Amino acid sequence: MITGKNYIGNLRASSGTKTFKTFNPLKNVENKTVFFEASTIEIEHAIDLATKAFEQFQLTSGIDKSIFLFEIANEIIKLDEELIDTYCSESGLSKERAIAERERTLFQLQTFAKLVKDGSWVEASIDTAKPSRVPIPKSDIRKLLTPIGPIVVFGASNFPLAYSTAGGDTASALAAGCPVIVKSHPMHTGTGELVASAIINAAEKTGMPNGVFSNLNSSGNEVGEFLVKHTAIKAVGFTGSLNGGRALYNLASKRNEPIPVFAEMGSVNPVILFPNAVENNYKHWAKTYSQSITNGAGQFCTNPGLIFGIKSESLSKFINVLIEEVKKIAPTCMLHPKIFEAFNKNKNNVLKNKNVAVSFENKGIISDNFGKHTIATINGKAFLKNPNLHQEVFGPFSMIVQCEDLHELENCISNLEGQLTGTILASNNEQENYTNLINLLKQRVGRLIFNGVPTGVEVCDSMVHGGPYPATTDSRFTAVGAHSIKRWVRSVCYQNWPNNLLPNELKNENPLNILRIIDGEYSKKSIQ
Amino acid sequence: MITGKNYIGNLRASSGTKTFKTFNPLKNVENKTVFFEASTIEIEHAIDLATKAFEQFQLTSGIDKSIFLFEIANEIIKLDEELIDTYCSESGLSKERAIAERERTLFQLQTFAKLVKDGSWVEASIDTAKPSRVPIPKSDIRKLLTPIGPIVVFGASNFPLAYSTAGGDTASALAAGCPVIVKSHPMHTGTGELVASAIINAAEKTGMPNGVFSNLNSSGNEVGEFLVKHTAIKAVGFTGSLNGGRALYNLASKRNEPIPVFAEMGSVNPVILFPNAVENNYKHWAKTYSQSITNGAGQFCTNPGLIFGIKSESLSKFINVLIEEVKKIAPTCMLHPKIFEAFNKNKNNVLKNKNVAVSFENKGIISDNFGKHTIATINGKAFLKNPNLHQEVFGPFSMIVQCEDLHELENCISNLEGQLTGTILASNNEQENYTNLINLLKQRVGRLIFNGVPTGVEVCDSMVHGGPYPATTDSRFTAVGAHSIKRWVRSVCYQNWPNNLLPNELKNENPLNILRIIDGEYSKKSIQ
Repeated sequence: MITGKNYIGNLRASSGTKTFKTFNPLKNVENKTVFFEASTIEIEHAIDLATKAFEQFQLTSGIDKSIFLFEIANEIIKLDEELIDTYCSESGLSKERAIAERERTLFQLQTFAKLVKDGSWVEASIDTAKPSRVPIPKSDIRKLLTPIGPIVVFGASNFPLAYSTAGGDTASALAAGCPVIVKSHPMHTGTGELVASAIINAAEKTGMPNGVFSNLNSSGNEVGEFLVKHTAIKAVGFTGSLNGGRALYNLASKRNEPIPVFAEMGSVNPVILFPNAVENNYKHWAKTYSQSITNGAGQFCTNPGLIFGIKSESLSKFINVLIEEVKKIAPTCMLHPKIFEAFNKNKNNVLKNKNVAVSFENKGIISDNFGKHTIATINGKAFLKNPNLHQEVFGPFSMIVQCEDLHELENCISNLEGQLTGTILASNNEQENYTNLINLLKQRVGRLIFNGVPTGVEVCDSMVHGGPYPATTDSRFTAVGAHSIKRWVRSVCYQNWPNNLLPNELKNENPLNILRIIDGEYSKKSIQ
Repeated sequence: MITGKNYIGNLRASSGTKTFKTFNPLKNVENKTVFFEASTIEIEHAIDLATKAFEQFQLTSGIDKSIFLFEIANEIIKLDEELIDTYCSESGLSKERAIAERERTLFQLQTFAKLVKDGSWVEASIDTAKPSRVPIPKSDIRKLLTPIGPIVVFGASNFPLAYSTAGGDTASALAAGCPVIVKSHPMHTGTGELVASAIINAAEKTGMPNGVFSNLNSSGNEVGEFLVKHTAIKAVGFTGSLNGGRALYNLASKRNEPIPVFAEMGSVNPVILFPNAVENNYKHWAKTYSQSITNGAGQFCTNPGLIFGIKSESLSKFINVLIEEVKKIAPTCMLHPKIFEAFNKNKNNVLKNKNVAVSFENKGIISDNFGKHTIATINGKAFLKNPNLHQEVFGPFSMIVQCEDLHELENCISNLEGQLTGTILASNNEQENYTNLINLLKQRVGRLIFNGVPTGVEVCDSMVHGGPYPATTDSRFTAVGAHSIKRWVRSVCYQNWPNNLLPNELKNENPLNILRIIDGEYSKKSIQ
């Protein structure tokens, strides 16, 4: 049941006076629940509880953390129709999408549960002593990853489940052993409260310390800023706009003790169409990309916003077929009137450029908050002159950049900022002729895709969902996949430490049977 | 031969007008060589060369990088007496220390050479495709670590070789595939030029691109600030003061594209003497710590600046023996008159506190720039009241904090800032009674030491030379040991990528025979 209250640890609270409501973009009306914004006292209480909870939670075994994470998944399943209905009413997204995203959320929780149950993720490394080494003996030195402390998570507007309350950031931070305080997203606060209730139920059932999780409502920036500036908070996870992410990064880096901010922000996800691919497969790629551009109203961080090619008759055909295919796809509702307005504003900022041609835009009246599918074109020379055209237009929009030649295309790629993804579409092994161009692309992205679409981010060990700034604030880490847990840990090492006081991961007998590096070799062996 | 010039890539240059000299603190006179500070044109030229060199160097094989690194070591050996003499004349340190530090420098270069020759350090990870997965097929996804771009290194005053021009930061960055621009330390610019010449010789002999290394002289902050603010620079390594490191961090975080700054800064390296250890072994520990406190004029980042114990007759005996032992050790020359002055100033700031007792300080006239060994004491209550007493006094100084009881001792540790190290001295397994105290210590340090001294940092896989702020700006990374290479890389992933265009590390046939994670399992197998 949605109460509109905050979770301060295990207790619901609504001592504040500021209230707000979420919005149903499909019906174009406010939803009914009144949400209470977290008061300063409530925020401080949540931080105190998280700080105390950390003392216990950092020592909680991988097995116990995995039981907690599995139980969160179970509790989310129990929310059943109420969760799906609330999700849809707060996002304008379809029931099918809600169900698929819930599946992804459960999969992420279960993935981290398995990871910490196995335990090898802590990168245990042991260099045994060499007492007879000259000129000085070598001490026994062992290290492992250890959680850094309470984390603040800001969820994404476009993933009310998978990248919000119990999404990737929360799941990975809890798996690491860090208490989490979620600053709930103002667009899906009801969805957030339901998921928070599942986490709290799971925490209580599995004996986790009170304060291991809190969920704070907020319609503005104050709650988030208070959290990020607080000395007890040790890292921040954020998914959203460049402005929002950068503001948090700036706050965090001005602290007396700076803390890491993992902000996943804007990306235009360049796609390069090579000549043979255009010539041989323009119909296929036009059809495939019409889906990738418009799916979910284009509201994905990996949406292909810029498509580059070299001018040719075939490239013109590609554009024509792309338009025909996009025409066939009905526009859909965007997440919120504000997102809809921002889409129109950012799109029009691009379209007003005299060198940009609007090749297609849905005509006539469409329902409120439905984003008109839009395909624009520009030539490479004009694109190079205006860096504003590199900026993300969040929504169902893509622009084809038609270059004179390979040199101009390389220049265009060289001038792009950091991106989450870069894609090349090739045919007949032509990619072998473009190694320089591909290398330029590689330097700017976190993930390279061959003959595919950037949308759809696999949750797996080898995934990199990240990229050079401004795609993220820290290109060294991924926000998706098992390794995203590395954001919430630091290494600590033990020199000459008594075996019985070592963490289990580092004990001689390897009681957890984890994979460790012993004197440079991976092994599950015990140490004599 | 020392010329006083900069290395802009492979060429010596001295187009600037600003000059300076280094200082011999032992003789208390300036050294003769006139050094030319790098001009703006020279800095820009070095950055341009590094940017171009990166295009080639990032693609250089591990084998070729290892040949380069081994050759740097060979070239440093060839510098022979000139290097040792210059080192001593610019640091006041002994010839024995110079030779030992050169050995360490060579060992570090060779360690990274072996690491990249082996090649497994790139954390290659492969998730093979599952074309028949429902509801959607799974793509083949592979990732590895890739260098981030040109790096700036600021060397340490106290390690003219091992943490300067060809020290740990430079060696690890070159191993990663990042060109390096060193902002040479103004106190040992001659030593820096000699080592730079070795790197340049090695680069030329082994066919590395011009610009893979540059060495810029500078007596003030301007050269360093220019470098850190430049868009082509992608990360910074720094070892030095909190003020210096924080200033660079602030510059880097205000950039349009923020970049990581790995600054290793202040640390007081708390040592906790448990009651039985005091009772049973006070003589041993007093003697051991008299050496650790005064060795190298106490000019180590891991110098034990604070020693905590619970008041007792034995603790008083410990203090008395410590004083007797320190008395026996002759003071030595500090690195530079400025370091000597800073030591006296910072020490006197502590000693002027009315609750601090000076238990020992060398009396009478000592040679210029020789730091007087100083042991102070304070009670726990007074220590808790004055956070200024937590600050590092860089030099041969240590303060013993005498606590009333365990509770006060725990409070003292709880109030400490982040540290590189924390040490416990225990006897008869008494450590088992202090798990809470030890856990409080662990949360604040990068390395825990049992019954030893914090000075002496082993170069090995499991070393963590880092720690929570203000010990470093980024506790997630180590500055010493093989894993310090992780500071200069990010992950990039390849989705559905053609085998022949994959980096060798990710190719099906595993041509480099490296250890990889394939579908979750470590293996050197090829993929069918």
